[in-house]
Amino acid sequence: MSGQVGRLAVVGLGPADARWLTPEAASVLEAANALYGYGPYLDRVPMRPGQSRHRTDNREESARAAAALEQAASGANVAVVSGGDPGVFAMAAAVCAEIEAGPPAWRGLDIAIVPGITAMLAVAARVGAPIGHDFCALSLSDNLKPWEVIERRLDAAASAGFVIALYNPASRARPWQLGAAFARLERHLAASTPVVFGRAVGRADEHVEITTLGAARAVAADMATLIIIGSPQTRVLVRPGRMPLVYTPRAAAGANA
Amino acid sequence: MSGQVGRLAVVGLGPADARWLTPEAASVLEAANALYGYGPYLDRVPMRPGQSRHRTDNREESARAAAALEQAASGANVAVVSGGDPGVFAMAAAVCAEIEAGPPAWRGLDIAIVPGITAMLAVAARVGAPIGHDFCALSLSDNLKPWEVIERRLDAAASAGFVIALYNPASRARPWQLGAAFARLERHLAASTPVVFGRAVGRADEHVEITTLGAARAVAADMATLIIIGSPQTRVLVRPGRMPLVYTPRAAAGANA
Repeated sequence: MSGQVGRLAVVGLGPADARWLTPEAASVLEAANALYGYGPYLDRVPMRPGQSRHRTDNREESARAAAALEQAASGANVAVVSGGDPGVFAMAAAVCAEIEAGPPAWRGLDIAIVPGITAMLAVAARVGAPIGHDFCALSLSDNLKPWEVIERRLDAAASAGFVIALYNPASRARPWQLGAAFARLERHLAASTPVVFGRAVGRADEHVEITTLGAARAVAADMATLIIIGSPQTRVLVRPGRMPLVYTPRAAAGANA
Repeated sequence: MSGQVGRLAVVGLGPADARWLTPEAASVLEAANALYGYGPYLDRVPMRPGQSRHRTDNREESARAAAALEQAASGANVAVVSGGDPGVFAMAAAVCAEIEAGPPAWRGLDIAIVPGITAMLAVAARVGAPIGHDFCALSLSDNLKPWEVIERRLDAAASAGFVIALYNPASRARPWQLGAAFARLERHLAASTPVVFGRAVGRADEHVEITTLGAARAVAADMATLIIIGSPQTRVLVRPGRMPLVYTPRAAAGANA
């Protein structure tokens, strides 16, 4: 046990390679004694001699957070890596929850959250400005909330005119949810509403598809896909020889200006 | 007129200094022949000989976008700078709208949107993980949409359990909207709901305040403030001698897991 106050940073790597890793994130990762994270995220961090690495499965978020906190409590400088932004459906909330549930000493640790580019921003950037006006972000995972809550949120968001970004749209264990979400949204939105599928954006296997709510195929999505569903104001601007631009104007219908 | 296809990039600088400027954004800014933007944002970009700078007022977004597109159409490599992320209540949608309204040649330009850390992510990171679960982002500016639309969206978001981030909460021309928004939200949310005010996060004059919906003072916000209002699940974790952590757990009440 060192007398030094331990430090734990939860670091957002962004959605892809180093082009979206902020200088702050790079420097916090470089300074850490120990890194914790899901293997594929750790693989994106350059190796440094003397820095230990603790790979965990993607589903073991609570155990990973607790192990990292325990090491920080011994006086170490620990970084927990997260894809995208750590505060958006990722590790920052898991770390906070473990601190609340853990020994009082964990509340004395120096905790830092280092923001990153979340997938929603990267996918939006690829196609124009689909979240250029009021938007919301929902996780479709019902591991952690009842499906009825998800339906209620889809209804509320679509009927009030929000653009909607869906995280965790599908996995092998959750094959039907995205189709059900599209069907639910069709109660409120026209079949012509623009829909963007952005898979692995920024990576070598990036795939972006612009379609409509009526034509969207849920089967095209997996764990690496982020989906954006337009509002009634969202527009698709066709460009000869180029991918269309999808954008939501800042002025709502019936605006003053 | 050059025969080269012009290029226009809309570049997100993040909310503050270079620590949050991505390597991609830095390299696109470095390569540009001409920069367009609101003066204080341009001031954050290192000067490079041979690169022209076009400063415009914050309210002249359409004119700025059109001027930048016109120069790109002459074959130049142009960058429009934006605070935060260009796709979130910022320049990317303005550029798309000008392309749609402009001459057909503008649709042939090479357009790129370069994402950045938006204020909501930076403020959330400062206090923990308040947007750790389903959230939405709304601009309180009613210059571009009727106040009734804003009220309807506040009602929908709060009653469905979204955490809410408010952009553009107040300005000299819009002194009453934030107070009205808080009052509206109190119809749906307890007075004890956590509220975060994050002003100028990442800058020397940064100020972050954690309060409650019942105690929140609208007068504390200005154009540089981003506000996060928790959901009924959002928790405040008190830490002796440290700022509290505010977080929204990934598991909703009544979840399966």
